[in-house]
Amino acid sequence: MADGPAAQPAFSLAIDAMGGDSAPEVVLDGLELAAERHPNARFLLVGDESRVGAGLARRRRAARICSVRHAPEAIPGDMKPTVALRIRGSSLRIAIDAVASGEASGIVSAGNTGALMALSKIVLKTLPEVDRPALAAIGPSARGDVVMLDLGANVQCDARNLVEFAVMGDAFARAVLGLTAPSIGLLNVGSEELKGDDRVRAAAETLRDSHLGPNFRGFIEGHDITAGTVDVVVTDGFTGNVALKTGEGALKLMRDLLRQVFTSSVPARLGYLLARPALDRLREWMDPRRYNGAILIGLRGVVVKSHGGTDAVGFAHAVDVAMDMVTHGFNAKIRDGMARIAAAAPSTAPPVPAP
Amino acid sequence: MADGPAAQPAFSLAIDAMGGDSAPEVVLDGLELAAERHPNARFLLVGDESRVGAGLARRRRAARICSVRHAPEAIPGDMKPTVALRIRGSSLRIAIDAVASGEASGIVSAGNTGALMALSKIVLKTLPEVDRPALAAIGPSARGDVVMLDLGANVQCDARNLVEFAVMGDAFARAVLGLTAPSIGLLNVGSEELKGDDRVRAAAETLRDSHLGPNFRGFIEGHDITAGTVDVVVTDGFTGNVALKTGEGALKLMRDLLRQVFTSSVPARLGYLLARPALDRLREWMDPRRYNGAILIGLRGVVVKSHGGTDAVGFAHAVDVAMDMVTHGFNAKIRDGMARIAAAAPSTAPPVPAP
Repeated sequence: MADGPAAQPAFSLAIDAMGGDSAPEVVLDGLELAAERHPNARFLLVGDESRVGAGLARRRRAARICSVRHAPEAIPGDMKPTVALRIRGSSLRIAIDAVASGEASGIVSAGNTGALMALSKIVLKTLPEVDRPALAAIGPSARGDVVMLDLGANVQCDARNLVEFAVMGDAFARAVLGLTAPSIGLLNVGSEELKGDDRVRAAAETLRDSHLGPNFRGFIEGHDITAGTVDVVVTDGFTGNVALKTGEGALKLMRDLLRQVFTSSVPARLGYLLARPALDRLREWMDPRRYNGAILIGLRGVVVKSHGGTDAVGFAHAVDVAMDMVTHGFNAKIRDGMARIAAAAPSTAPPVPAP
Repeated sequence: MADGPAAQPAFSLAIDAMGGDSAPEVVLDGLELAAERHPNARFLLVGDESRVGAGLARRRRAARICSVRHAPEAIPGDMKPTVALRIRGSSLRIAIDAVASGEASGIVSAGNTGALMALSKIVLKTLPEVDRPALAAIGPSARGDVVMLDLGANVQCDARNLVEFAVMGDAFARAVLGLTAPSIGLLNVGSEELKGDDRVRAAAETLRDSHLGPNFRGFIEGHDITAGTVDVVVTDGFTGNVALKTGEGALKLMRDLLRQVFTSSVPARLGYLLARPALDRLREWMDPRRYNGAILIGLRGVVVKSHGGTDAVGFAHAVDVAMDMVTHGFNAKIRDGMARIAAAAPSTAPPVPAP
């Protein structure tokens, strides 16, 4: 089949077959699952041709929708992004190149996060309307799934960046969660208007006056994330990264303690067996694999990072997220939102700090 | 009994009897419990004389260790700190005045947080060695209790503030957790030395070279808080406040979901009954009341904020924390630590941002 550049991308996604703790096996198993859900997609699978080709030969469904492209090298998980940038023959680089050339609409990789972010920014470049890309992900809350960004792409942000994140988070929630009017909250240390620093107050003011105003719920606090107070949680990359990992850590602590509880005595074991169907539903609902796939948004192309240690089910979820974004014209939504924020004029200029 | 100023404070603690959602009843019930644990303490109970006096008459143990001082006014929970500052006859103000005059070593209030922080800072003032006080609290982890600060007293911090928080957190962990060499971590978006912003990198460098160096574990991430990787988690007030509330929110989500699980079917209910003794131990261990009492440290006097909605058990815990700090010469430890950081010289000057 043709895999040269084309007006309509030949491939839905380019897949870094060599990224992740158990690549390429887990990637291939994940694609076998993804092939069931996206039978009409076409994936460009980039990696060591002999290993990937042999693996694909054993997976009939994945083989039907995947083409293999050879990459002589792979980027280790612990390589510094600055070093990774120089390796032109890596599976990651060749996959990103396929997005840059228009062959594929997006890329999914379970490999080195820093390398993926750095290479995507440099090779794909940001959308013309966007100042800085952001890392977003979906997580569970008491009232359904919640989008949070930035999760670490930008450790220092100004008010303008926060406003951009809100526009991108809005587009993301529409495309991936299928919401028509996602509510948006700005993470702060209190919900009163005077709380926080100049940066969050200036961003809140811009958002209130923007086309997102009707859906902007103002400031929210840390506990609002899992309470599901809003659909989109906007924050700087430092706070977002810490909040995400703190929340995950708290849930892990609770899971570990529950495991201890249910193995602590014979009656407790029996109790576990009786409650097991309900506990299994809870576990399934909270399953981190269901939330696998962080998205670097604001670039010319869809870029999804799968967790490096996930299994086939998790990798397939990351592919789902990327496919949702490709299918729903995600970047068109962002560009539209950015144009509307820009049209609302002076408020997009870097806001003057409050006195 | 004498309650005028004295070289040795007449009272261990001044208690704001009118602060909190169910004051003064919950405060009095909490003191009834505290009286059992601290039979030799003396508390100055400040509030509406007739209500507090009548309540005290019904609580024999508390009555034995408390003296009442009348305050004609009380500060509502939603009053702005700037307004609260002007009310000289409030129970909060009169209690803080008792600490300022040397009558009491510290204060505990379940009332308006902003008012407590503002009044304490203005009336008590910071220790001469401390630039800015910080809000600290203790939380659960997989490896024992963890101290975290700042939790919101300073939404904008520089490297020097972070170093101060480390010194104060160290003293706090020694006094309240009874550790002889608490390990310290600086919250960041990754554990590698180059991660984060200039601020955290400069603070890490100062700490590495200080007397705390041997116990400084460098950068930690959000999930390290509940993993118990370190005893003292240091961060700025914005990040700390969001992290604390995010972790609490995640635990609450899990608790709510478990409640649903165990009421979802007859076998699940039966399973709950069988596992109940073990689940109750877990609940007790995670009980937020056990962690009640946030401490504003760095002031001339011990200042503890109890949660406004806690019950008698929670209030008694806040009193325990304050008593630990008073008993263990907490402020002497801070002053000693600050002196040693200052002696380590140029590193305490506000660090120059890295190039």
